[in-house]
Amino acid sequence: MTRVGVWLIGARGSVATTAVLGALAVRSGASGRTGCVTERPEFAPARLPGIGDLVFGGHDVSETRLCKSAERLARAGVLPAHLPPAFADELDRTERGLRRGLDAAAGVGRRDVDRLEADLRGFAEREALERVVVVDLSSTEPRPEPHAEHGDADALEAALDAGTARIPASSAYAYAALRAGCAFVEFTPNTGPRLPALARLAERSGVPWAGSDGKTGETLVKSALAPMFAARALHVRSWSSVNLLGGGDGATLADPVNAESKLASKARGLEHMLGHGPDGPLHIDYVPDLGDAKVAWDHVSFEGFLGARMTLQFTWSGYDSALAAPLVLDLARLTAHAHRRGRVGPVPELAFFFKDPVGTREHGLAEQWRALTSWCAAPAEEDE
Amino acid sequence: MTRVGVWLIGARGSVATTAVLGALAVRSGASGRTGCVTERPEFAPARLPGIGDLVFGGHDVSETRLCKSAERLARAGVLPAHLPPAFADELDRTERGLRRGLDAAAGVGRRDVDRLEADLRGFAEREALERVVVVDLSSTEPRPEPHAEHGDADALEAALDAGTARIPASSAYAYAALRAGCAFVEFTPNTGPRLPALARLAERSGVPWAGSDGKTGETLVKSALAPMFAARALHVRSWSSVNLLGGGDGATLADPVNAESKLASKARGLEHMLGHGPDGPLHIDYVPDLGDAKVAWDHVSFEGFLGARMTLQFTWSGYDSALAAPLVLDLARLTAHAHRRGRVGPVPELAFFFKDPVGTREHGLAEQWRALTSWCAAPAEEDE
Amino acid sequence: MTRVGVWLIGARGSVATTAVLGALAVRSGASGRTGCVTERPEFAPARLPGIGDLVFGGHDVSETRLCKSAERLARAGVLPAHLPPAFADELDRTERGLRRGLDAAAGVGRRDVDRLEADLRGFAEREALERVVVVDLSSTEPRPEPHAEHGDADALEAALDAGTARIPASSAYAYAALRAGCAFVEFTPNTGPRLPALARLAERSGVPWAGSDGKTGETLVKSALAPMFAARALHVRSWSSVNLLGGGDGATLADPVNAESKLASKARGLEHMLGHGPDGPLHIDYVPDLGDAKVAWDHVSFEGFLGARMTLQFTWSGYDSALAAPLVLDLARLTAHAHRRGRVGPVPELAFFFKDPVGTREHGLAEQWRALTSWCAAPAEEDE
Amino acid sequence: MTRVGVWLIGARGSVATTAVLGALAVRSGASGRTGCVTERPEFAPARLPGIGDLVFGGHDVSETRLCKSAERLARAGVLPAHLPPAFADELDRTERGLRRGLDAAAGVGRRDVDRLEADLRGFAEREALERVVVVDLSSTEPRPEPHAEHGDADALEAALDAGTARIPASSAYAYAALRAGCAFVEFTPNTGPRLPALARLAERSGVPWAGSDGKTGETLVKSALAPMFAARALHVRSWSSVNLLGGGDGATLADPVNAESKLASKARGLEHMLGHGPDGPLHIDYVPDLGDAKVAWDHVSFEGFLGARMTLQFTWSGYDSALAAPLVLDLARLTAHAHRRGRVGPVPELAFFFKDPVGTREHGLAEQWRALTSWCAAPAEEDE
Repeated sequence: MTRVGVWLIGARGSVATTAVLGALAVRSGASGRTGCVTERPEFAPARLPGIGDLVFGGHDVSETRLCKSAERLARAGVLPAHLPPAFADELDRTERGLRRGLDAAAGVGRRDVDRLEADLRGFAEREALERVVVVDLSSTEPRPEPHAEHGDADALEAALDAGTARIPASSAYAYAALRAGCAFVEFTPNTGPRLPALARLAERSGVPWAGSDGKTGETLVKSALAPMFAARALHVRSWSSVNLLGGGDGATLADPVNAESKLASKARGLEHMLGHGPDGPLHIDYVPDLGDAKVAWDHVSFEGFLGARMTLQFTWSGYDSALAAPLVLDLARLTAHAHRRGRVGPVPELAFFFKDPVGTREHGLAEQWRALTSWCAAPAEEDE
Repeated sequence: MTRVGVWLIGARGSVATTAVLGALAVRSGASGRTGCVTERPEFAPARLPGIGDLVFGGHDVSETRLCKSAERLARAGVLPAHLPPAFADELDRTERGLRRGLDAAAGVGRRDVDRLEADLRGFAEREALERVVVVDLSSTEPRPEPHAEHGDADALEAALDAGTARIPASSAYAYAALRAGCAFVEFTPNTGPRLPALARLAERSGVPWAGSDGKTGETLVKSALAPMFAARALHVRSWSSVNLLGGGDGATLADPVNAESKLASKARGLEHMLGHGPDGPLHIDYVPDLGDAKVAWDHVSFEGFLGARMTLQFTWSGYDSALAAPLVLDLARLTAHAHRRGRVGPVPELAFFFKDPVGTREHGLAEQWRALTSWCAAPAEEDE
Repeated sequence: MTRVGVWLIGARGSVATTAVLGALAVRSGASGRTGCVTERPEFAPARLPGIGDLVFGGHDVSETRLCKSAERLARAGVLPAHLPPAFADELDRTERGLRRGLDAAAGVGRRDVDRLEADLRGFAEREALERVVVVDLSSTEPRPEPHAEHGDADALEAALDAGTARIPASSAYAYAALRAGCAFVEFTPNTGPRLPALARLAERSGVPWAGSDGKTGETLVKSALAPMFAARALHVRSWSSVNLLGGGDGATLADPVNAESKLASKARGLEHMLGHGPDGPLHIDYVPDLGDAKVAWDHVSFEGFLGARMTLQFTWSGYDSALAAPLVLDLARLTAHAHRRGRVGPVPELAFFFKDPVGTREHGLAEQWRALTSWCAAPAEEDE
Repeated sequence: MTRVGVWLIGARGSVATTAVLGALAVRSGASGRTGCVTERPEFAPARLPGIGDLVFGGHDVSETRLCKSAERLARAGVLPAHLPPAFADELDRTERGLRRGLDAAAGVGRRDVDRLEADLRGFAEREALERVVVVDLSSTEPRPEPHAEHGDADALEAALDAGTARIPASSAYAYAALRAGCAFVEFTPNTGPRLPALARLAERSGVPWAGSDGKTGETLVKSALAPMFAARALHVRSWSSVNLLGGGDGATLADPVNAESKLASKARGLEHMLGHGPDGPLHIDYVPDLGDAKVAWDHVSFEGFLGARMTLQFTWSGYDSALAAPLVLDLARLTAHAHRRGRVGPVPELAFFFKDPVGTREHGLAEQWRALTSWCAAPAEEDE
């Protein structure tokens, strides 16, 4: 049996904790597979690595232990109360494999990325893994200013040698992953592997990567509804969106500097799907009271035949971690599959999972679903 | 230039009035084509009959004149106030081509269907039409009790001869249409051509037909959202739906006997799309105050990873006539196209337009869109 | 210190369990007093019996033990998980004071009501109570057919003697309570003490009673909003209401025969508050999936200056037991207070708590609040 | 018959146009009195000036004629299409009485305020008015920086003499009104008469004034709902508000500098009504597509007994002008009434109409209603 490593950046956060605990619970039969896309019958032909084949590790700058994080989520109603104690030992075992994350406040240097890479190689060796997928689940970063080392591989190496590389932490993690031969999933709106210098490094290293910004809630609904308006030739005049978040990412996003990249990746899709950019605000608000819940309200004003004015509004109320965590497992399995099949660079077939998909301009959910399932319907014999 | 007849059952109702006036306004450039699906670029290869090529006639039991009906819709805000006076003459010209509808309270006899058929043949001849598509827009009927003449063509002929055929009015219109060689669109939840005896008659007459029950509002949104839950492996536990209607059809549907067929056709799709039938009521209520507007509220409770409970709710607020009328034009053009291309019997490629599509179990909007546009992407040279 | 008995009809149900456990938790300091109206400063002058002075007993036909009921509510998220184990002993002590309820399927006889009365007298004596308030929390009953014994006290006594009294169970409980000198709170839409024969018995027994049908959710919001429309001279044209209930009462109300009295008491208020009865349906639907939660959607269409058409819609999502239970404590305290102050018969000052208040036509929440607080602001010295 | 002048600052805007046209339509019987609070029976004892007794004039910096403004509102569906042509002559007559408004970009000087005052005196004389009420309906201004002349009447006079008074336009209008002996209504969030120097001038001039910021939509609903939570001892944890506006004021408010005073006056009330300031954003967004409509969504998360978490959300969809215009007529009548009865300075009894009422901290709608109607129930004989 092949064992696939899943290395989580932000391994002690809510999403990562839910993913790790969920994988343990599913494997043991204590929980069902609801929310796991790759458990649907469409994916059977691809013979993906099983949820039980995943081995977890990760980086984090927080020191809150996994089991504490799980208990907090249980108290908040995101996880069933009986799960954290039932899997306390396994959580502690994963805990021991976690490593200190990167503090990117200062410039990034060679020593930093070497250490991250060594952590990854150590994980693969220690756990005897066939391959490792690194998944970025860290907090939203400010959008970086452009620098010469972003676009040019040599400049990047030189800046790392000098200890002055002005790259965001997410890109440092991506650099280390690619160097270690690991596939990479950018689940946040962070830059990660999207610097041209890193895209080239991925090619050279022969690894696939996917991203960005997991499509878990309001944007998911948008990507189901916007194609409906387009197909029916209804003219969307305004689409106003409000997102109320209480969790840790909400606090990060309360700072407009951090929110900028998130807002950009949320807005882009609508214009692609409708063929034009409608009026209307897009808010992300931090409402601490909501805890791990997030509530989104969208108001769509559209015009029909002979100018008739009509509206659709929806309210989505969900738990960010419960929505994101199974997608992390799905993406780990699918990206490992891509790696095994020799895919290199961006994997546009994974657009279904992302607000801002790389390698494609398709934002409609149904089309993304078709692309994903077509890819996975191909018989697995094509593999190496 | 080919001229295509569009014969509307319920020709003086809100949907028909909006369709006729809208076609006039679009043809003259007074209005745009918003809401007209077949004006999208995907349909260009099919070289469908143009909106300007459509010639209207129809049956109705009401005697309210078309221009009065249009004025009422303008006062209600469904149509721009300037349109009815601007096209008063053309509406009156169409008015003159309308014929008295069928009163099906008593049994239907040979004389009745012969008269309806003669009306259709007269229309085609008088207007020098290439072909005629009959579109049923009449009020929702009670679901008929089964009778021997429904299943057997000979029994039906015999019952018509005896003047005792216990078939609903919609089926009498369908019989006349098929006999006259006209394609048929069942835009209501009525039985229309769905009696086995009529399905066979369509085969013999070599005409295509489409249906049933135009998907214009809440069910349209459902058919965009339900596949989202399914693709994401989220378990929908309850889906509660409330429809508030003020217009003429609302009054008809306030009678539970009439509502039965509508409710059945609305419920069926959800089960197909989700793979199971969730909890939750489905109400259609007559709220006269709403006039031509309809408001629907849906509340979806679903379960995600590790049992997390989440909700989505939406409110749709639209004008039934503005939503349905352009689809009537679309269906007339597409069904005429099917007829011209030699299609016989149900046309499942038109499922995109219907709550209860014939000839297919596909209810997901995106899949229906793909089937429709694939069909119309085929080059028109195939035509004989 | 005075001890006040609270005897709950339906003592093992969700509302009763939450009330009993909640009183224990508040008394011990384990929980706060959120939701307890009578803990507001406006009630201080009345020197009501304290929550810690309440002693609980009750009848039920169910045999599910209180602590099991509490555990179920904790699993459903209505109660904090730590409360049921923390108060298991106290719940068991209350459990031992519960008595078997009345099976009213057959006619009610003297022996039945005597037994209920004896249970009440035994409770008061055993627990050395100053007085007892009986609160009906039982399931919604079908609205009873009128019978001679409803209107006439002698006829009622005769029918009880004969064992053929055709009175609902709620009225049998009320009869026993009044005979035992206990005040009575009808918290359900059931008939309870509202039979004229019982109203007279209350007078003779010198006890106060309050009712009916606790105003806990959607109707509460209505009673805050409808006066707003009235005061602003806005004309409400339609008010459509949908209530989705998953709990035990939802199942009972799924039977239209049982729902009838509930629907009537919900509808009445709107007409009083607006000065006219608007259009629109009022649905109560059983959606088992929702469990103890209830969700209500209201859509209000109103007309403003010069005929402008506008709308307000709201969605209320709450837990029935959490909303009702503190009101049960409030009503026990306030009705005991009324009893102590010598009030006899209906207490209209308690309209604030009810959908269908006795002794007043005031349904507006703010006016009800003013009547309640004015009454309780009177210095307690008036007491004997 | 007494004639009362109503001088509108912003006389060509949407609210003013609707108020003027509406008064004409009501007077002639062409429209009903829906939305006119002072037409309710509670106000009969006060013998207020009739709607037919009101004579309109005003200032505006815009040059769009009243009848053009009315036609635009009719096209947008705010006014019935038949009204503007039916009252074109009367609108033109009012038009002739309008005067050029103040451009306050530069400092305000003696000549400016003298001109405004002369306009008011000329209006009163020309139209033979018993008294004049000035109502500010102008666009939202930036909140002014504090200056010495705001707090001190002599300093203000000196600054006006020097032509350097740094007061907002709304305060210049208020100054002129008070000098001319006119009562003043601040219907916007602007400063208007709230400068201490002006409050003193009102005292000296012996005129009443009312304000500020008409409570027409989302805040109105808030002021009906927040007291409900408070009375039920439910703890509101977060209250998030989004306002989507398309009209002229929306554009003004899109500038955060202008929005500041509006946001402040909207937020204040909630804290007063709940006893604490809950979490949650308060957005005002300009969505041009919405035209004269405004849509507000509020999401309230609250805690009940034993910590149960529940939510209420509402969507309000209305026309600003239709909501505000009748209140302008109400306030003109009521403020003239106050003036006639000798009231001087702020009139807190009018809090019912305002988001940020002067002279009181009462924000609850029902209490405000009680204060208003009690005042107007006093027999009119008290008048001199």
